[in-house]
Parts: sequence; C-alpha cells; structure tokens
Amino acid sequence: MKMKVRVEIDLQELIEKGDFKTLKRVLEQQDPADVKEMIEKLPPDLKIVIFRLLPKDKAAEVFSELEPDDQMELIKLFREERLKEIFESMDPDDRVELLEEMPANVVKKLLSYLSPKEREEILAILNYPKDSAARLATTEYVELFEDMTVQEALDRVRREGKRKENIYSLMVIDRTRKLKGTVELRDLIIAEPNQKVSEIMDKDPVFVHATDDQEIAAELMKKYDLIMLPVVDSEERLIGVITFDDIVDVIEEEATEDIQKMASMSATYTSYFHTPMWKLILKRSPWLVVLLLLESVNGNIISSYEKFLASIPVIAAFIPTMIGSAGNTGAQVSALMIRGFTLNEVTVKDWWKVLLRESLIGSTLGLILAGVLYLRAFLISSDPTLNFAVATALLVLILYANVMGALLPFIARVLKIDPAFMAGPLLTTIVDVTGIMIYFYVVHSFLT
Amino acid sequence: MKMKVRVEIDLQELIEKGDFKTLKRVLEQQDPADVKEMIEKLPPDLKIVIFRLLPKDKAAEVFSELEPDDQMELIKLFREERLKEIFESMDPDDRVELLEEMPANVVKKLLSYLSPKEREEILAILNYPKDSAARLATTEYVELFEDMTVQEALDRVRREGKRKENIYSLMVIDRTRKLKGTVELRDLIIAEPNQKVSEIMDKDPVFVHATDDQEIAAELMKKYDLIMLPVVDSEERLIGVITFDDIVDVIEEEATEDIQKMASMSATYTSYFHTPMWKLILKRSPWLVVLLLLESVNGNIISSYEKFLASIPVIAAFIPTMIGSAGNTGAQVSALMIRGFTLNEVTVKDWWKVLLRESLIGSTLGLILAGVLYLRAFLISSDPTLNFAVATALLVLILYANVMGALLPFIARVLKIDPAFMAGPLLTTIVDVTGIMIYFYVVHSFLT
Repeated sequence: MKMKVRVEIDLQELIEKGDFKTLKRVLEQQDPADVKEMIEKLPPDLKIVIFRLLPKDKAAEVFSELEPDDQMELIKLFREERLKEIFESMDPDDRVELLEEMPANVVKKLLSYLSPKEREEILAILNYPKDSAARLATTEYVELFEDMTVQEALDRVRREGKRKENIYSLMVIDRTRKLKGTVELRDLIIAEPNQKVSEIMDKDPVFVHATDDQEIAAELMKKYDLIMLPVVDSEERLIGVITFDDIVDVIEEEATEDIQKMASMSATYTSYFHTPMWKLILKRSPWLVVLLLLESVNGNIISSYEKFLASIPVIAAFIPTMIGSAGNTGAQVSALMIRGFTLNEVTVKDWWKVLLRESLIGSTLGLILAGVLYLRAFLISSDPTLNFAVATALLVLILYANVMGALLPFIARVLKIDPAFMAGPLLTTIVDVTGIMIYFYVVHSFLT
Repeated sequence: MKMKVRVEIDLQELIEKGDFKTLKRVLEQQDPADVKEMIEKLPPDLKIVIFRLLPKDKAAEVFSELEPDDQMELIKLFREERLKEIFESMDPDDRVELLEEMPANVVKKLLSYLSPKEREEILAILNYPKDSAARLATTEYVELFEDMTVQEALDRVRREGKRKENIYSLMVIDRTRKLKGTVELRDLIIAEPNQKVSEIMDKDPVFVHATDDQEIAAELMKKYDLIMLPVVDSEERLIGVITFDDIVDVIEEEATEDIQKMASMSATYTSYFHTPMWKLILKRSPWLVVLLLLESVNGNIISSYEKFLASIPVIAAFIPTMIGSAGNTGAQVSALMIRGFTLNEVTVKDWWKVLLRESLIGSTLGLILAGVLYLRAFLISSDPTLNFAVATALLVLILYANVMGALLPFIARVLKIDPAFMAGPLLTTIVDVTGIMIYFYVVHSFLT
C-alpha cells in the first residue's frame, strides 16, 4: 500500500487525446514496478509511447521487468538510439537475463552498444551455464582493500554509491581480485574512522562459485539471511554479487517447477499467458501419452480376468474406487516427501525412518478407509463376502500406495532424477497398474 | 560455501570426553544457522550442554531457529536465569513467533521476564490475528524526524545501530508516531550533511497495515524489492518493520501450503519429522474418506450397466485408462492455473481467455491421446467398433477434463475457497465420477 490516493487512469484515452503532459506527470510518480503493471496489457505501439515519456533509468527498469515476448516486440519497435540508451542503463544482471532470451541477431546488435570492457564482462558471464549462480551476478558493488581505514572505505562508498546500487555489503579483495572478506555497511558505519577494514571485516564470508546452481545460492542467502552474496570464479577471484531480491525469484521458480513436475509436465519457466499454446501442448502431451500407455497395461490385466468378470460383473464397479483411493493416498504422501526434500527437512538417509512412519500411517489410513468402504459397498452389492473381499483389497492397496508414494521420491533422488516427477500422475499410474493386480488377485482368491 | 576448511566434528564425543574448551572454540567460529544444523539431531540433554557454551546473543539466535517442539523441550530443561537471558536477547519478531506456539503457562512465564513496556508491545502484536503482517514486525529499527539534518540522522544511526539490527531503511515519523516517509541508508550516506531528512526521504513509501495478511506484505516487498517494509496500525502510526529475510519464509510457506492442498490434505505448517504421526493421519484421513465416498458413486453407475458389462466384459478393461488419463490431464492444467493465481499471472477476469485456450489445447490433446489409444486397444480387443467407441469416449473425456481442470480453480476463487484444493485428488475424483458416466454413455450408444 502507498499513502497517496489511488485513482484509475485511462492511459489509452490520455494517449489518444495526446495529453502527454498529464501522462508524463502521472508516470513520474510511479515506481517502475507500477509502470510495468500499468502498461503490461497495452498493445505494443502504445507501450512505445509510454516508454518515450519515461526517463532512461526508469525506462530501463520497466523494460527489465517485462516478459521476454513483450521485450522482443519492443526491441523491434524502438528507434536505434532509444534502444541503445535503455540497454546501457540496464543493470548488468538484467542485461544477462535479456540476452539469454533473445535470438542471436538481437544479441549481436545489443552487444554492439556496450564498451569493449562491458562486452567482455557480459560474455564471460554468458559463458557460465544457464541456471548457474554467475547468471544472477551483478557487477554493481563496491570493492574495498584490507589496508584501507574505515574513513577511506566510507569515502569510497560515498563516492561510488552514487553509481552503484548495492552498497549494504562491501567486498574486500586483494590486488589479484581474490575475495578476502566482506564488510557490512552497518559495521562500517558504527566503527571508529581510523580502524582498518581488515579489523572489522568478516574474514570467512559465505560465497558461491560461479558454476554453482542458482538454488545453492538461494539456499545460502536464505540460511544466513544475506543481503548480498559474493560470486567467485574457479580461482576464487570475485566476479560479481547476487542481491537479495534475486533469490525470491529463484525460490518461486523452484516452487513452480516442483508444482509443474508434480503434475507430470515439463516446467514452462514463462508465465501462463506468455507461454504459447503449442508450447503447452508440447510440454504436456508426451507425458500424457506415456502415462496412457502405462495405464493401458491395466486393460490387459483386467481382460485376462474376462471370465471372472462375466460371472461377477459388479467386481468392475469397485475399480475406480480402488485405484482412485490408492492414487489419492500416494499423492498426499509424495507431496509431503517432495516438499520435505526441497526444504531440506528430509534427506535420503532418512529413508528407513520414513518407511517405518509411513507403514504405520498407511496401515491406519487403510483400516479407516476399508471400514468405510465395507459399509458403503452394501449400497452396491448385497454380498457380504464380496464386500469383505473388496475392503480387504483396499486395505492392502492403501498401505502399498502409501509406502510407494513415500519411497519413490527417495529412489528418484538416488537415481538423480528430480523427486517432483514421482508425484501425482506418474505415481498414480504406477500404483494403478500394480493396484489392479492386487485387487483382482485378492478378490479372486476370496471368491473362487 | 565458506572459505574455511570443512571438518567433521563429533559433538557427542567431545561432550562425553568433557572437552568443553575445544567445543567452545569450535562453536565460536560458527554462524547461528550452522550451530542450529549441528545440534538439531542431538538429544535434548546434549543440546543443553551446547547452549551453555554459547554467548547469550548467539544462544538466542540459535534458539529462535529451532522447531517449536524442540524449543518446548529446551524450555523445560533450561535453568530459570538462562531461559530469561535467552528470551531477553531474542529479536522481538522471534519472541512473537515463539509465544504463538507455546502453551499458556509457558507464555505467562516468558512474559514475566520482560519489562512492562516490552510486555505491552508484545501483547499488542499478539492481539493481531495469526498470519497478519503485525506478527512479522520487529521493533529493532531506527526512527528519524523530518526536520533532522542528514548529519544528525547519521549520528543517530551510528548511535542506535549498535543495538538495533535493521538500519538500511530508516523510518521517518512525526511526534504522534505517524509514518511520514522512509530514507534509504544509501541515500543518507551520499547526501550532503546539512540537507534536511525531509528533502531526501521517500514521501510516499510502501507500507502495510498491521492486520493485512502476511502474503500481502511478502508480495509488496517482492514487487518493490524492499529491504524493510513499515507496518502501521489503523491510525497509520508505525508499530514496526518487516525485514527482507522474513518474506522468504512467507513465500516458502505459501508454496508448501499450495502443494499440500493440491495433494488434498490440510496444510501441516511444521516440517515433516516435527509433525507427529497422529497429526498427519488427522490432516489426511478426512480428505481420503470424503474422496472415497465421492469416488464410490462410480460403483453405482457401473453396477447400473451390469448386464451390458456381463455381455461385453472387456468394457471394464478400459476403465482405468479412461479415468487415469482424464485425471492426469486435469491435474496438469489445474497445476498451471493454481500457480498462475499464486503468482498473479492469472486473474478471475481472465476466465474466458483460459476457457478458449484450454478448449483448444484440450481438443488437441484429446485427438493425440485418442489416436494412441485406438491403436493400443487392438492389443486388448480385436473389435474395431469397440476400439473406435473407446477412443471417441477418451477424446470427449480429455476435452472435458481439461476444461474442468482449468475452470474449477476459477470457481473456487469466486467462492473464496483456496484454488489449490481444486487440484490433484479432488479434481481427479470429480472428473472420475462424471467421466465414467460419459464413458459408459458413449460406449453404450456405439455398441447397442
């Protein structure tokens, strides 16, 4: 919430009326994040008008926050000088993010706007793998040396802080750019002016290697509550810093990925309306086909009991309840495990503890559900033996599904597959196929 | 990663040998987050030994990070003075979090350790609802006044910064404690010493009301990349600030909640091994029973086709494939929608755009899957009419499941139910029941 009064403004109308003065005044008062929200849904040619009215720094920030498909369209429409101006004003890490998404010819054009030194820096970062910590790093930080006094350090922060955005944690390096420590601005401010930086710096700071995964960076920043995290290359030379606002994005992306994988689809990485339909179909259909083929094995199992079924067709009436309940049970426990892995609450070593717990829980849930089904079954069949057989099969199935749902994520982890894939649909399908076998085997033994 | 060499230390052995000197030396070098990890799995009596060796500030930080059940056990074991010392050294927001979880008699004891003023502050915050922004607020921030000069402001920051942890954003208030603006420490440092605070402050800062939900606070901090967010009461008087490290927890909690609800269980809020088994059964079984009863409606539908089934029992062989594939399709699309809602990529107003997109996507997926099933079916039945009927039923079902999976989260949103409940098991069950009707209706029409 902000203190100012909220008013609804019809941007489109202002533009059509040509009232650029009001428009400019309104835009001046907005944060870049607000401008982004205001213009997101406008057609590209109106977006261009808005961009023309923004000062270049704000334009760069707004542009950085747009989705890649919108950025692409604007790049085509900007005049050359305007594009250059915006690209030059962007934060180094936002530039990297933009270049990652653009086609080669656009990348080439954009790189030509930079100084040779900046170009070299950005190409070095683009050499690191996608999703590596290096890709999040910005070079907008302040460097100090160990032998500086607190006064000298503060003077430098004051001087460089005008241009460089991230000054709340300061990087202490030696002449070869090796990271020697970090100083919190807070400690610098409360220290005596003639103390040495080496006396107040943290000599054992947390850092990541450039090739480490972004998730490692996010976890470290979360664990130690860091505002900035230094990134070093293989020779421990400082190449940049990751700032606290980036890790929220990493954590959200990770959760989205988990959720999408748990629903048996490949992760999309772009937001729903910015993912084209053909891409969604491509991310979803291979999984659905594989699961269909797996599930259809049930067809063969069931048809092998054709005679049994023809004699007691009501057996078929319980198939959906059997596989449905087993699937639900498995979905619950696998969600618990997968989230446990993501949040480091559960590790592979805990498998036997989980097996024990979930066997007990599975038995209890199985007894509850079998009891309910036994009673409910009389509304479908009046044969108590049949209903008892069906309830017994469900008890076995629930215990089985609960243990499978708990252990498959562990197996995935050992096989270096993302445990998130072992949830929902995939798990349900695996449990279905074996579940149908268990069901027919149990019921067949009871009734023949 | 830290620069120091990592060594494995057997804490238990050091304690048993009575080598408290080494132990103390080792503990001194660790961050609170590391100490927490080191001791987490020790039995309570050994935890107590470690706590005895920690200086009180570090002890308070480590204690704050433990899970509620561990905290409870330690509180029972601490000597009175030690407990008082630790509680007094805790951050105000951590104190609130602890009190939230403890039983009344413990709360009473803990509150008695505080000064009347502190007690009043904490009780005021505990009066706000659970999950409100107020509950995250800390009072460890620095206050400025508009008419101060930059020099005066910096002097105050230097003086108070020794005690107060959060000084990177400074709160400007008037004599009635009304929030007038905020100043970034960065701007204060680069400003001229004789400028007024009012000249450099942000006069329209982002803030939340104490009663706002924590998720709103998290979203604002994410949107505007804030290090600190002011919290005001109903009269817009400042009562505290939320710091950036808290919002990561809120975002992760939110994702966990989504994932657990999507697996049709009530959210647990505590980590897996810290949730007792009976609690897990209680969170899971009501859902499973309800879903079982819903799913068992299928039994009645199928048994009404008993004669049809007795004449062509192979019909039953395709039941799992039908409901399985429909469920998988629905699970995918609902996961997309639910995540879209959480990340504000999709709003209720978009329902018709989603309906259009997902009808097209559903038809395409339906055609692909029906084609695959038509061919696969010959391995189960040699009757082309039957197989064509089955494939047609699947096409209808997939389109139906895709549209339902997309729209149910919208309906939940309108009914003010959390859309996350409309995923996975619940959706699958709803789609199953109607899906079986569609399947039997289509196949019956084709074959009789």
